[in-house]
Amino acid sequence: MHAITIPEPGGPEALVWADVPDPVPGEGEVLVDVTAGAVNRADILQRQGFYDPPPGASPYPGLECSGRIAALGPGVSGWAVGDEVCALLAGGGYAEKVAVPAGQLLPVPQGIALREAAALPEVVCTVWSNVFMVAQLRPGETVLVHGGSSGIGTMAIQLAKAVGARVAVTAGTPEKLRRCAELGADILIDYREQDFVAELLEATGGAGADVILDNMGAKYLGRNVQALAVNGRLAIIGMQGGAKGELNIGTLLAKRAAISATSLRARPLGEKAAIVAAVREHVWPLIEGGHVRPVVDREVPMDDAAGAHRIVEESGHIGKVLLVVP
Amino acid sequence: MHAITIPEPGGPEALVWADVPDPVPGEGEVLVDVTAGAVNRADILQRQGFYDPPPGASPYPGLECSGRIAALGPGVSGWAVGDEVCALLAGGGYAEKVAVPAGQLLPVPQGIALREAAALPEVVCTVWSNVFMVAQLRPGETVLVHGGSSGIGTMAIQLAKAVGARVAVTAGTPEKLRRCAELGADILIDYREQDFVAELLEATGGAGADVILDNMGAKYLGRNVQALAVNGRLAIIGMQGGAKGELNIGTLLAKRAAISATSLRARPLGEKAAIVAAVREHVWPLIEGGHVRPVVDREVPMDDAAGAHRIVEESGHIGKVLLVVP
Repeated sequence: MHAITIPEPGGPEALVWADVPDPVPGEGEVLVDVTAGAVNRADILQRQGFYDPPPGASPYPGLECSGRIAALGPGVSGWAVGDEVCALLAGGGYAEKVAVPAGQLLPVPQGIALREAAALPEVVCTVWSNVFMVAQLRPGETVLVHGGSSGIGTMAIQLAKAVGARVAVTAGTPEKLRRCAELGADILIDYREQDFVAELLEATGGAGADVILDNMGAKYLGRNVQALAVNGRLAIIGMQGGAKGELNIGTLLAKRAAISATSLRARPLGEKAAIVAAVREHVWPLIEGGHVRPVVDREVPMDDAAGAHRIVEESGHIGKVLLVVP
Repeated sequence: MHAITIPEPGGPEALVWADVPDPVPGEGEVLVDVTAGAVNRADILQRQGFYDPPPGASPYPGLECSGRIAALGPGVSGWAVGDEVCALLAGGGYAEKVAVPAGQLLPVPQGIALREAAALPEVVCTVWSNVFMVAQLRPGETVLVHGGSSGIGTMAIQLAKAVGARVAVTAGTPEKLRRCAELGADILIDYREQDFVAELLEATGGAGADVILDNMGAKYLGRNVQALAVNGRLAIIGMQGGAKGELNIGTLLAKRAAISATSLRARPLGEKAAIVAAVREHVWPLIEGGHVRPVVDREVPMDDAAGAHRIVEESGHIGKVLLVVP
């Protein structure tokens, strides 16, 4: 098969579409003929040499895909060859075939095209596990979503609205904020022009956000804690603004607030399967009912993954950039 | 009645036993004839002028007491004049009488003397709400309790053991550690002589603590995050080591860990009542069954609250220092 390989870490040109051995599904795994993958920021870190795959994972990048089941490994039940699926991966989605633990498979939701479904697994599992399973966003609460026009952001807006929360977003251009509003965002903050703490507090009558979904890490830590409401929960899923920041424990304590930080990729199989099962139970009906949909910026041929990375690195996209097997 | 007043903030001598008007129980409150109160570190901060009572609370210090119900305010049911109770207070426990919201009353557990019961409300509610309700310590997990010989610490050790957890403690003298061991602590760390991160990791085969109960705040923040296990939860309830510290979000994220910070005093009545109800359901049977007991260092006459504060400020005590109405 072909896969995107990374002979040497570097810029987008480090991604090389090469002939490699087919993966073999192990115990409890299925082999998927990939239709499409999708780009995540973690893939860029992996390309740059900063985020090696966890032990046992495919060496190729790609944390999600859609496709058809080509073969079942030993001990797999509930799935059949030919099933249209999408999957959460620990790697290997930038390839024509990938072996996936069966617990990380999801059926393609009714009403969603097979290619589009590649846009779902990583963002849905990330948002559901953080905003709902960890931070426990409830109807009537306010959630602040940083990077509202990203793949994660566009899904977080829709899921939060679907459960009856009020949604504030930050984004870097009026066009991105307009798209966030179309998806349901109630409070729109241009982080290049506005102070998100002041804007959020004004829009909430001084109360702040019950939940914040953050991809910036250190750069926003102090301001996120300021923006939290009493009993607020800050869920950190990325460190685009650095890893080490000053925490004001006094403010956190006065608000009885909490901070969590998670990632999906390194979790053990059982935890991933539990998240995937929760997503299938709670989110799939919202997608099939038309309340939530994948937001796809564009489709790029997988052998031009370098071009797709350039788009994401320039933050010119809204939603997900797909990589379609040529 | 008499109460300990604070005419001017300052050292222990700022505490003055004075004649003051009796409190009047409002809607949903009861009047308690106080038998004993107990010292908490927050009382010292209040005496120093750093921790004013929340709006509507008694101006006198004292966050817990035991005694007999002297009168019922309007709208109180389920309690009768003469009932022996202990109570979680927002203030006013250093006094002969105190008015208490009925939701913050607990019956004196069978087998516990009325005076001793004053040692229970603050520590039991603090430990239960943080270690169990927020951090969700589970059987088989490891909890690290800083200040294991404090009032909070001695209760945390016993409750954690009672639910089947493994308990590590830090304390500052061999005698304090010996007392922690008597209460059930499995891993004893002298923080003056040993590095608690190294000791804990060694004792847990490198795994770390699933839950940490911390009263030090900034001074321990970095090391607490290092000492956390994967999926670990750091519960901060005090800032004896300062309020602002550097947080390594990268470490937190790699461990999928969480940090919470809470206090009891400023919570709304409904939240306090929910905690008190949970304590009555889950902890009172453990006390009445003899599995958990209040640890009282000594009893001091309430009009010598200054002497009691000196003892606590010198950290010479183990467990709680009671203030008995003379």
